[in-house]
Amino acid sequence: MAHESEAIEALKKALRRLPGIGPKAAQRIAFHLLGRDRATAKDIARALEHAVARVGHCRLCNNFSETEVCGICVSPRRDSGLLCVVESPADLVSLEQSGAFTGTYFVLMGRLSPLEGIGPDQIGIPKLQNRLESGAVREVILATNATVEGEATAHYISEIARHHGLLATRIAYGVPVGGELEYIDRGTLAKAFSGRREA
Amino acid sequence: MAHESEAIEALKKALRRLPGIGPKAAQRIAFHLLGRDRATAKDIARALEHAVARVGHCRLCNNFSETEVCGICVSPRRDSGLLCVVESPADLVSLEQSGAFTGTYFVLMGRLSPLEGIGPDQIGIPKLQNRLESGAVREVILATNATVEGEATAHYISEIARHHGLLATRIAYGVPVGGELEYIDRGTLAKAFSGRREA
Repeated sequence: MAHESEAIEALKKALRRLPGIGPKAAQRIAFHLLGRDRATAKDIARALEHAVARVGHCRLCNNFSETEVCGICVSPRRDSGLLCVVESPADLVSLEQSGAFTGTYFVLMGRLSPLEGIGPDQIGIPKLQNRLESGAVREVILATNATVEGEATAHYISEIARHHGLLATRIAYGVPVGGELEYIDRGTLAKAFSGRREA
Repeated sequence: MAHESEAIEALKKALRRLPGIGPKAAQRIAFHLLGRDRATAKDIARALEHAVARVGHCRLCNNFSETEVCGICVSPRRDSGLLCVVESPADLVSLEQSGAFTGTYFVLMGRLSPLEGIGPDQIGIPKLQNRLESGAVREVILATNATVEGEATAHYISEIARHHGLLATRIAYGVPVGGELEYIDRGTLAKAFSGRREA
């Protein structure tokens, strides 16, 4: 398109850098905003700049936070003896929405991945060690993903926890609630059997 | 999430207003930008503000343009006697990419939709009439979508064209190239038969 506006081309190109947004979606978003919703375009621009300027990481749990210590870490209603380690802020949001956990978190912002050059320093392990050394934690609950890299990360952190004399546990993996055995993959079924408990 | 950063909440809320972006995708985008790609966040904010400030509509064809008259309308290589009417800038992009058309365009930025309160004035019909009165156009090619509203819009504009003594044509609808009859819907097959030509 030799004739297209440079400003629109630049906008499409910037939008294509978003996760899950291909060339067609970038164009649809750009045209929608310019054609029908310029107020939203301005609001998004402002929200992006505001968030980039304001949001840092919590000194204790490493999650996104606008304050030095986040709302969860500072809350007196959370049990700081239980430390749940997750890979991402999205995982933390899912756990919070489930209401299943009332302890505190540590957010790795990634998982160990030697192939991608992501080692312990890149996922905040030194910060996690400081947290464990502080003495408040009694149990480290490993809630990394059930992938090869998530398992390796959980194993690595469990070794660190044990080195600090702390209990390290892994969340349970098995058949999801409502799941029908017929449609569940072999790996999950194997986990469900190896993790069986007395009924 | 009582504990989440207000700046992140505001960003997710703004992103959810984009077409095709639900709550999960908005969260994924927000966390991705803040966690790994703050440069992209800043670039998108700048590109949005720049585009909103710079991009208006071409005085002749109504497409997005940074200049009073767009690159296609101003080009001496385009046949200004042929005027192709499309619903949206995205349709124009598709036609340009096909290379099938070397005339000029008129972009309605919508289609007639009485139920949504979109009448002739909302889709730039007065601007189109000025264009037809200028005398340069000899054929109006109706390339609105093959939907009920697109057909009604094409019919309405064809009446205007005839009122100006101009030839009005509709692009052909039928079996797409590579299409197998077995999998083509009845409406398209009916169009393909009614539009048959001598082989």
